[in-house]
Parts: sequence; C-alpha cells; structure tokens
Amino acid sequence: MTYRVDLNSDLGESFGAYRIGQDQAIIPLITSANVACGYHAGDPLVMEKTCQLVTKAGIAMGAHPGFPDLIGFGRRNLQVSPSEVAAYVTYQLGALEAFTRHHGIKLQHVKPHGALYNMATKDKDLATAIAESVARFDDKLLLLCPGASEMALAGQAAGLRIAKEVFADRAYEKDGSLVARTKEGAMITDETLAINRLIQMITKGTVTSIDGKEIPIQADSICVHGDGPKALAFVQKIRTSLTDLDIQLAPLTEIVS
Amino acid sequence: MTYRVDLNSDLGESFGAYRIGQDQAIIPLITSANVACGYHAGDPLVMEKTCQLVTKAGIAMGAHPGFPDLIGFGRRNLQVSPSEVAAYVTYQLGALEAFTRHHGIKLQHVKPHGALYNMATKDKDLATAIAESVARFDDKLLLLCPGASEMALAGQAAGLRIAKEVFADRAYEKDGSLVARTKEGAMITDETLAINRLIQMITKGTVTSIDGKEIPIQADSICVHGDGPKALAFVQKIRTSLTDLDIQLAPLTEIVS
Amino acid sequence: MTYRVDLNSDLGESFGAYRIGQDQAIIPLITSANVACGYHAGDPLVMEKTCQLVTKAGIAMGAHPGFPDLIGFGRRNLQVSPSEVAAYVTYQLGALEAFTRHHGIKLQHVKPHGALYNMATKDKDLATAIAESVARFDDKLLLLCPGASEMALAGQAAGLRIAKEVFADRAYEKDGSLVARTKEGAMITDETLAINRLIQMITKGTVTSIDGKEIPIQADSICVHGDGPKALAFVQKIRTSLTDLDIQLAPLTEIVS
Amino acid sequence: MTYRVDLNSDLGESFGAYRIGQDQAIIPLITSANVACGYHAGDPLVMEKTCQLVTKAGIAMGAHPGFPDLIGFGRRNLQVSPSEVAAYVTYQLGALEAFTRHHGIKLQHVKPHGALYNMATKDKDLATAIAESVARFDDKLLLLCPGASEMALAGQAAGLRIAKEVFADRAYEKDGSLVARTKEGAMITDETLAINRLIQMITKGTVTSIDGKEIPIQADSICVHGDGPKALAFVQKIRTSLTDLDIQLAPLTEIVS
Repeated sequence: MTYRVDLNSDLGESFGAYRIGQDQAIIPLITSANVACGYHAGDPLVMEKTCQLVTKAGIAMGAHPGFPDLIGFGRRNLQVSPSEVAAYVTYQLGALEAFTRHHGIKLQHVKPHGALYNMATKDKDLATAIAESVARFDDKLLLLCPGASEMALAGQAAGLRIAKEVFADRAYEKDGSLVARTKEGAMITDETLAINRLIQMITKGTVTSIDGKEIPIQADSICVHGDGPKALAFVQKIRTSLTDLDIQLAPLTEIVS
Repeated sequence: MTYRVDLNSDLGESFGAYRIGQDQAIIPLITSANVACGYHAGDPLVMEKTCQLVTKAGIAMGAHPGFPDLIGFGRRNLQVSPSEVAAYVTYQLGALEAFTRHHGIKLQHVKPHGALYNMATKDKDLATAIAESVARFDDKLLLLCPGASEMALAGQAAGLRIAKEVFADRAYEKDGSLVARTKEGAMITDETLAINRLIQMITKGTVTSIDGKEIPIQADSICVHGDGPKALAFVQKIRTSLTDLDIQLAPLTEIVS
Repeated sequence: MTYRVDLNSDLGESFGAYRIGQDQAIIPLITSANVACGYHAGDPLVMEKTCQLVTKAGIAMGAHPGFPDLIGFGRRNLQVSPSEVAAYVTYQLGALEAFTRHHGIKLQHVKPHGALYNMATKDKDLATAIAESVARFDDKLLLLCPGASEMALAGQAAGLRIAKEVFADRAYEKDGSLVARTKEGAMITDETLAINRLIQMITKGTVTSIDGKEIPIQADSICVHGDGPKALAFVQKIRTSLTDLDIQLAPLTEIVS
Repeated sequence: MTYRVDLNSDLGESFGAYRIGQDQAIIPLITSANVACGYHAGDPLVMEKTCQLVTKAGIAMGAHPGFPDLIGFGRRNLQVSPSEVAAYVTYQLGALEAFTRHHGIKLQHVKPHGALYNMATKDKDLATAIAESVARFDDKLLLLCPGASEMALAGQAAGLRIAKEVFADRAYEKDGSLVARTKEGAMITDETLAINRLIQMITKGTVTSIDGKEIPIQADSICVHGDGPKALAFVQKIRTSLTDLDIQLAPLTEIVS
C-alpha cells in the first residue's frame, strides 16, 4: 500500500517594506502553500509575487484568511460575530483568487489563520460561518483544519471536503485536540520522536496522546514552518524520513477524495 | 430614434460604525452602482449589505476601487507605481466579486475612485496598469471613465469596452477634459442649464466648452450623487427631464456595444 | 449641603470624511468630554477640531483611549497583553495631549473606551496596566470608571484619583456592577425613573439593585450620550431635573478630591 | 580648533511581528536616533522598546514623523494639506513623547521621514506647517533637515533651532540641494571619496557640487544607515576616520547653538 501526505506551510506574509519568512527556501520543500490575504499579513504586491513563485514551483495554493489585526499578526482573539467572520473570509478569498487568474492556477484550499483558526476549532458558530462562506464562494475548495474540530464538522455540514492536518511538534489530548501550549509537555521538541510520531500517524492512523493512549488520527497534511534555518532543516528531515519509507508527498487534491 | 443613458452613483461607502451616503434613497433613482471595495471606503459587512440592496433593486453593479487611504477617503493623490496600482485594483476587484457570487449577480463595470480616477485620467502608465489589471481579471468588464482620457485609450488598448461618463455639474475644456475645479466657471450651478447640457450631450453628442466651442462628447452614463436631499432632488429632476423626452434609462450593458 | 455632579460624554469620534455624533449640540450640555485618540475613532484633524470646540466651550477634556480596531469601533474584545495595553494607552494619551498644548488646556481625566473599558472593569491585569500607564504619563490625571471595578482598585493602587461614573439607563447588581445587557431588566427605559435613580445616587449615595436591595454607590459623574435628538433631549432633561434641585454641574476636578 | 559632528540614524521601524533594521547594532555607533512614531513604521510596543534601548545607550532621541502610509513605508508622496500635515506631526510628536517620560529622557529633535521630508524640503507651505506644529508642541526641539531647504527656512521663521544634516553617499547640486537619485552621478559609491567629502564638509564647510564647484555646506549631523552588515561597516569606517582626525562625535544639542 502507498501512503501519501501533503506538507503545508504559511507563505506570503511580508507586508510593504517588511519581510517575514523565507518563501523561496520553503517552497521547494512543501506541496501546499497557505497564502496570506492582506488582513493579518500580506499585501497586494506580495500576493502577486507569491502567486508567481507558487505557480512557477508547481505546488498547490490555498487562502489563509485571518483577522483584520496587522499589528497583532492575526494572533489575538477578537470577539467577532459570525456575520463579520463570514464577510472577512469572503473578502479575503476573493482578493486572493483575483491574483490566481492571470497565473492560470486555481485555489486548492482554505486554511484560517492564527486566532481565527484557534477560535473556529472550538466555536461552532464561527466554524459554521467560515465553512459556509467558503462553500458559497467555491464549493470545490478543501477546508484544511484539524480532524477533531468544530471546523471539520462545519465543513462537512456545508458540503466541503475536509483536509485534516497534523502537527509534528505538538502533543495531543485523548480527544484528538492539541494540548494547550501552556501545559507541560505540549511541545514535542525531540525531532526524531516528532518524525516517528508523524510516520505512525500516516501509516497507522494513530497517535499516542499525552496521557499515553493510542488514539485515531488522520494525517492528510503536515503543517511545517519555514522561519529560520533550523525550521527549514527540520522540514528537510521530515521530507527525507518520509520519502525513505516510500511515503509520497503530494498536494491535498491528490490525497483527499 | 431612441436615446439611452445610464445613471451611475457611488455606493457602499460606509465603514464600521460610520455611515456615509443614502444608499437606499439613491438606488431606485440610478441604473448602475459603483461599489467601494474596502480601501478608500467600505468594509466586508458593508459590501455584503450593498450587494443585497443592489441585487434586490435589480440595478447593475460595478467595482469602485480606490487608494488605500481611508483617512483621506481616497481623495488625495498618492505617488504609486503602475505595479502597485495594478495589484491594488486586482485585490479590490476580487474582494468585491466574491460578494456577488452568492447573490447570483455579475460585476458589470469598473470605475476607479477619487484621486486614482483623476490621476489615471491623465497618466498613461497608471491608466494602462488599471486597464490591464481589469482585463486580466475579467475582460467582459466595462471600464467607466471620461471619453477624453488616458483611461479610455488604455482601456481600448487592453481590449475592454469603454463606457463614457459625463458630469451634469461640470464645465468642459475644448479638448473634452473637465475644467479644473479651481478655475472660474468650473461648476455648472444652474440646474436647468445643467440638464439642458445633458440633453444636448445625449441627443446631439456635443457640449459647449467653457470657451464657447461646440465639441463632440459621448454620454453613455451620467455621474450623479446621493449625498443629501438636494442632491437626491436633482437626480430625480434629471430622471424626469430625460424620461419626459423619451430618453431611456438603462444600465451600461444595454448601452455600450 | 450642596451636591455636585459631572456630566461626561464621548466626543471627537468622527474619522476622515466620516461624521459620528453631534459634538456641537452635546458640548453645551456636559461638563467633561471624553475625546477619542485615533485608535477606535478620531483622527488628528478631528482631535485638533475637538480641542478647539472644547476649549471654546470651557468644559473639561479627557482622553478616551481604545483598541486599535477602527472597523469595530473599539467595541470588540481583543485578547491583548497588559504590556500591549499599557503601550496603546501611553501612545494615545501622548497623541491627544499634544493637541491640548497650543490651546492652553490640560487633560483632566482618562476614560478607557468600549471593549477596553469593559474588559478592564473585570480584569485586574488589564486594569493595572491602564492605571500604571496613566500614572506614569501624568499622575495628576483622574481615572474615570465605575466605582465597583478592578479599574477603580488599580487606579488607587497606582496613586491616581478615581472619578466614579454612573449610568442613568442601566440597572445595577447588588455588588454595584452593571447588569449585563443580555439580562432582563438591564436597561432603565422610563426616563423619570432613571432621573429619580440619579437623584438618589447623588443625594443619598445609594441605588436600588435589580434584586431590590438599596446599595451604596458614588456618583461623581453621569455618563450621557449625544447620538440623536432623543438622547440630547434626555440629557437636557437630566440637567434641568438636577439644577431644579440645586445640584450643581461641575467638571470632575471640582468634585473629586 | 575642535570640530564636532552628530551621527543620526532611523530607528524603531519594526511593526508588530515584523522586524526591520538592526537597532541594537547601530545604536552604539550613532549619537542621535530618529524614532518612528507609528504612522509609516513603528508601533506602541516598538516605541517603548526603542525608548529603553536609546535611554540605556545614553544617546539622544528625536521624533521621526511620517505619512499615514504603512504599506508604502511613508516613501510615497501624498497630496496632503498643510493642516493635515500639522495635525499628523502633532499627533506623532505627542505619541512618542509620551514614551520618553517614564524613561526620564527628553526629545532632542524632529526629523520628518521619507516622502514627507522630501516634499517639505521644497514645499514652503508643508515646511511651514511642520515647523509651526513642532514649535507649538515644544519650541526647544531642534529641526533636523538639509541646510538648503524650505524646511530650514520655515524652522527659523518659527523660532526653532536648525540642525543641518548631510549625506555621505549623495552628490549635491550647486545650490546645495541633493542631486535627484534618477540623475547620473547622484550616488557616491566610493567609500573613501564619501568619507573625504564628509571631512571637507565638517572641517572646511564646503562640498564639491556635481558640476565641480566648491559650495558652502554646514554639517551638524551625518545621516547614516544600519540596514545590513555593509551599511554598519561603513558607519564604523566613518566613525574611525572622523575620530582619527580628532573630530568629536556628539549629539545635536552639543553642536547646535
């Protein structure tokens, strides 16, 4: 049997004169890019440039909508209403999609960013607002989110295909949710352990929770980071470890049915 | 012979808790709405609401992209590069188009706003950047602009159909350009005179320039304003005067071939 | 014995081309103005204009700092850290104070706005961050807040004088906190009852809580609104009712010792 | 005779999660810091941090106000009115000054940033608006600008002391203005030549213009950059070259009488 997994990473987060991330270094290492849409990060020139890079590299592209909080990089919870979130997501999807047109590519997926992602993981109303606005915009789009989340449920209810992502460096509760960063043991810092956990998730469909139980988990995609040489080296190590085991790397559309 | 003309007005300029314009009062009086896209005015919730109103009224909708200068309402010249303008326009077209989808309508036209409009009237590079970004986004879109302008030329060069707009309350130079507001006689304040000028433009295809010459001008659309009871009354007066002469009011797509 | 009370209202909330509030109508009716500082509302030209109006009217002026959320008018909770809030408050106090200088007036007080106010009422860390940043900026400034609040406690701990405000149109819990708007009976809609409650607060130092207990409350200032003819008429009615009883209206500095 | 000169550089230009500049590396090399005030760059947390660094290093601090154009980093001309500029400058001076208070330092100078600087060099009305708003805020502040500029004239007219800055890497016209970057020979790329030109400016009070004339120039301060290892090495080379000649490095207040 052949296993497949996608590697996704956040791209296009620069803004004006400000540079963040190492897009050109991470692009060759991943299969799906989550591109910022000008709210928490990114600007129209950056979006144009990112579309060029992604198109040239032949990887898949998704939208990475966030809160209108540039100063906080979209990482701070904001008490928004479902209708506000729906409008924010619609706006950002359209803005990014506009740049894909003349590059002849299509958006593959949507992954909410930062605090919006975290809030929608647990808040059914926000999750529903996001899922429905994505479905209304283009019901062929995949929703990239944790498998055990309100987002996954809301996406299915809205008729979207769900791509389930996992994290190499995070511990899981026994219900499949992420252990809060504030809790002891939340981060997996041993790289070999982290990669072995990934391999188990992909090939066996399980992970060992923080309290020692083997629980089911589905790994359509692995979220990786490109901020710094160490992060890039870790992504390279994940790639090598997976391909050594004949696990294929492929964009989400080739994985999610 | 039957004459036809479109009436266009700027809509959806509210922002957050701030209200501007009388959208519900002006909508029944016009045939095409220019909708702000969140840069100089408008926000996602306002765009959603405006799409609802416009769709319900059955009038045509266009995008009204502007400079990223909310504090200046997009009315101040900004020294942007053509690539910046192209990216700003692409971004805003996509953002607005996203809201039209679930209302089952299509964008009819694009009219640049404020300082962007004024600069692109005279600056060939900016005009070309705008026209090409519109054409790349959707080459069925009409470009609404003055007939005697770099924008009209650039739009034609980019393969777009041009909708030529005229102003009831402005004097014209003999080259067909608007008399600068700072010049004596720039504004036509007599409403009857203004309407008679409109009728001449529509039925005869000419206007008397500020220095007394009768020059050719094409009036596909008349730009009107809805800010205040007096402005609304003037629009109503224009409508009545035109329809009394059997001049039909129709959206741009029924006028521009 | 002579009773005194201040009437405070939010001013200077316009932004660019956007107008909010009826500053010129409410100014003659109040004794202290809370002026927006460019984050949730207001802009530098508006701040300059508001300083002119307030100075000319001879009423007292305070800063009304809020969250950097113009699109949400500062009314949405934002998960900020204490150091972020301290920096935001410092920034806004300085910005507004700069405009007072050439008008020869001094800031009298600080009243946090909207969601920042609500959060700091109950969150000790935020309240402390606000109080300490105010005290560091100018320890002569009064902190205008509810008497029964973390803000009042934090202000005292930071060495600030506290001005306690009450609301005419809100019910109180027996611990002196406001009844949540979502609860039945939270709003006092009968104007005569509302004014009688104010008179009792001022002259007797008590209010009847929503569950019928007479509890102590201190009314240094009454928060009033100027948004619309009905609101303005209610403020006028409050003024008349109070002055008929020889209750003097005076700015906070003449009330708080 | 002892010569003295100041070295000034732009600092505090980071924003939220975005880092720009190498503040900690450049601070030990300069005598005056121009600190961004949250409009074209900088944010309240960055301003607090920058005040800490500058205070600890014991160098002088000035305000670096710019246009409200974060996406363009304040480098694009914006068609502002004098009253808008006056209000923008007042706002930013106050905001930055607020952070200096609890660090026990005072603002030394004001240097407009980017396009605002360039426009005010040649536009008398803008220059006057800036100078008067600085003088109204604090007439002890120095105005840091080119000697041959409308800003220097407007500053003197407003009663401010002027600190005249020169550029190591730029050629001069015979009227003492900078050669436009678009012109051949505008940039001095030879580091030794650049430093020799600086020494001549400081010790002889002259510079050779692009057309070969020796013209008078006053060098109170040299503008240097800290963006990248090469820039930092050049500043270090300037420092060494000057101190080898017993030219003292000192903040502006010790130079301008």
